[in-house]
Amino acid sequence: MAKYVKFDLYFSTSMRILIAPDSFKNSLSAMGVADSLRKGILKSLPRAEIRTLPMADGGEGTIESIIDATGGDLVIVRVQDPLLRKVESCFGISGDGSTAVIEMAVASGLQLIEPEEKDPWITSTFGTGELIREALDAGCRTILLGIGGSATNDCGAGMANALGVKFYDQDEKLVAQGGGALGKVRRIDIGGLDPRIAETRILVACDVTNPLTGPRGASYVYGPQKGADREMVEKLDSNIADFAGIIRDQLGKDVESVPGAGAAGGLGAGLIAFLNAELVEGVPAIAERVGLESEVKWADLVITGEGRMDFQTQFGKTPFGVAQIAKRHDKTVIAVAGTIGEGADVLYDLGIDAMYSILECPLSLEEAINKTPELLETAGERIGRFLALSNS
Amino acid sequence: MAKYVKFDLYFSTSMRILIAPDSFKNSLSAMGVADSLRKGILKSLPRAEIRTLPMADGGEGTIESIIDATGGDLVIVRVQDPLLRKVESCFGISGDGSTAVIEMAVASGLQLIEPEEKDPWITSTFGTGELIREALDAGCRTILLGIGGSATNDCGAGMANALGVKFYDQDEKLVAQGGGALGKVRRIDIGGLDPRIAETRILVACDVTNPLTGPRGASYVYGPQKGADREMVEKLDSNIADFAGIIRDQLGKDVESVPGAGAAGGLGAGLIAFLNAELVEGVPAIAERVGLESEVKWADLVITGEGRMDFQTQFGKTPFGVAQIAKRHDKTVIAVAGTIGEGADVLYDLGIDAMYSILECPLSLEEAINKTPELLETAGERIGRFLALSNS
Repeated sequence: MAKYVKFDLYFSTSMRILIAPDSFKNSLSAMGVADSLRKGILKSLPRAEIRTLPMADGGEGTIESIIDATGGDLVIVRVQDPLLRKVESCFGISGDGSTAVIEMAVASGLQLIEPEEKDPWITSTFGTGELIREALDAGCRTILLGIGGSATNDCGAGMANALGVKFYDQDEKLVAQGGGALGKVRRIDIGGLDPRIAETRILVACDVTNPLTGPRGASYVYGPQKGADREMVEKLDSNIADFAGIIRDQLGKDVESVPGAGAAGGLGAGLIAFLNAELVEGVPAIAERVGLESEVKWADLVITGEGRMDFQTQFGKTPFGVAQIAKRHDKTVIAVAGTIGEGADVLYDLGIDAMYSILECPLSLEEAINKTPELLETAGERIGRFLALSNS
Repeated sequence: MAKYVKFDLYFSTSMRILIAPDSFKNSLSAMGVADSLRKGILKSLPRAEIRTLPMADGGEGTIESIIDATGGDLVIVRVQDPLLRKVESCFGISGDGSTAVIEMAVASGLQLIEPEEKDPWITSTFGTGELIREALDAGCRTILLGIGGSATNDCGAGMANALGVKFYDQDEKLVAQGGGALGKVRRIDIGGLDPRIAETRILVACDVTNPLTGPRGASYVYGPQKGADREMVEKLDSNIADFAGIIRDQLGKDVESVPGAGAAGGLGAGLIAFLNAELVEGVPAIAERVGLESEVKWADLVITGEGRMDFQTQFGKTPFGVAQIAKRHDKTVIAVAGTIGEGADVLYDLGIDAMYSILECPLSLEEAINKTPELLETAGERIGRFLALSNS
């Protein structure tokens, strides 16, 4: 390699660039992010060949990204919210009609209840089960399920109930919804489970590894943010442990220590136990559905990003996941973010070659969120300039 | 040029990088900026050869930059402030002792008076004249004078007075200090002017082109920010016009319409009229004193910058000036800023190849100012990563 590097512009280069970002939370969809970056890059590299592919990691925005990426549809349905009130909810269907994309948060999430209503003793995942049933009705036999943001701690009992599973107490009475009643379950009847589940592949995008119970379990780690005080946390944990014992005894499945079983108040465990679901990493599962890998192969350079990148990004967030796939094909990866926070530099060792924040002046988070489209466009333009600093 | 660009890291490349920024106003000296960037770049390009050269444009920070760049000294002196009170002031002497660097603002600037004391009717540039005299006493026969931030509108009469020039009214009485008394001047006696002025080259770094009088002149454009109301502005303008007439008649110098004569309340005109000074562009004059051009020739890449870059940067600010010199030698230029503001993109056509803001998360201006050193270091590291995205 030359010792003295001569820089030169190569505006004439038709570099192939794939833009595959996540959404910028509370601000712009992944497609919006990709489009803004593309517009900007074309200003400084007008002959670049650019493809966009909105990505997601199973969290908020996953439905929209997959619909945008595959030309799919959004289906509006009414289901029960965490407190069993009817609420408008939705799920996505991929362009080919084969795959449903469900975010549990839009049926059983904290976003649906007031702060003062938070109560994991009674909140239920019933609505998530209803969404799954709607997806089956729509003919989907692959379901990709994102489980972030839950308001529940019911080990997926409500979800299973909505799909025909029945839970009885010692008096052979049906047990109530919610994490508080779980301890009363003595018998599980899965005879009524929707038969279409058996022919359906359910992939659960899960980015946590918490076991179901104990100090790292669902109740202790996530219970407090759902409204449980210390005493309730202990009871919820004990209830779930009892419930897991019944599952083990009667269904022959040991879900208590499976990594990820504790996700979404134990919904992870319930999905494994009752629906035979697979817990998977979100980005690879979504990448497969939207055809990311072939686009990566086509590209010379991959640009990814998300609203905030920091030390948590390495735990399965989109920029990390996209970089992992890009590196398999030895592609350069640039990650663009609103905020580059503490610990993001670890990503340099995980496949991201360069990082760029879209911010250009002191402003508040709210201002940054409002200006995201134009900031992204400008960032795309500036990044193009850096790419044009080629050494010959 | 290859159609398909293959990116690769070249951490092993010993690229030659010159870092020649301005200070970041209210935050960090030019040397501090350069050092922080250097530290960061060495993290991502450990074998880069880096030289630093603090720059300035004649505005705030010019003394410090030239002292840092040449190994010079700061000289502390007592002079009269704009209201003729004794105040501690200073000037710089270049490492070789030949050149004095004076910022008029530290003797005659708004920074020395309270907002309620602002009154261009009486404020005087006397202290600036004292600084020039001190520089002559120190043996300097080149004086580089920055004239931003003045509190005065006296056409440099006070400055000239401090160096021995006398101004008489119609009764042959000495005229008082300040722009209000200028209209009374009927006779100028330059017989007492310090004789060392004749053997001294005085370069005035001037980044405005305002004439002395009229709607674009000193009083109308800058009078209000110095405390003049509409009525006072009109009188000040009329006084200066009268004074310029006397200068023309008695000294044979027509300063009224010289571009830049209206800078610093007419100090530009006074320096020309009484001291035979040359108005020059700040960056080229400073570049010559600190040896910028030979460092540019050595470098493969030049990094410059300032706290805020926007449409005004093109009017002689450091990033513009450094880029002009770098382009003469066909070098790549990257400009780093805290804020990249409205209209900065014009710099792409003026020699700056790429721009980078050091900000990475929403924050206030105060927070940005406090975090500037670490933000610059991180920016240096990230820019190094982009430079490492070489196409082979």
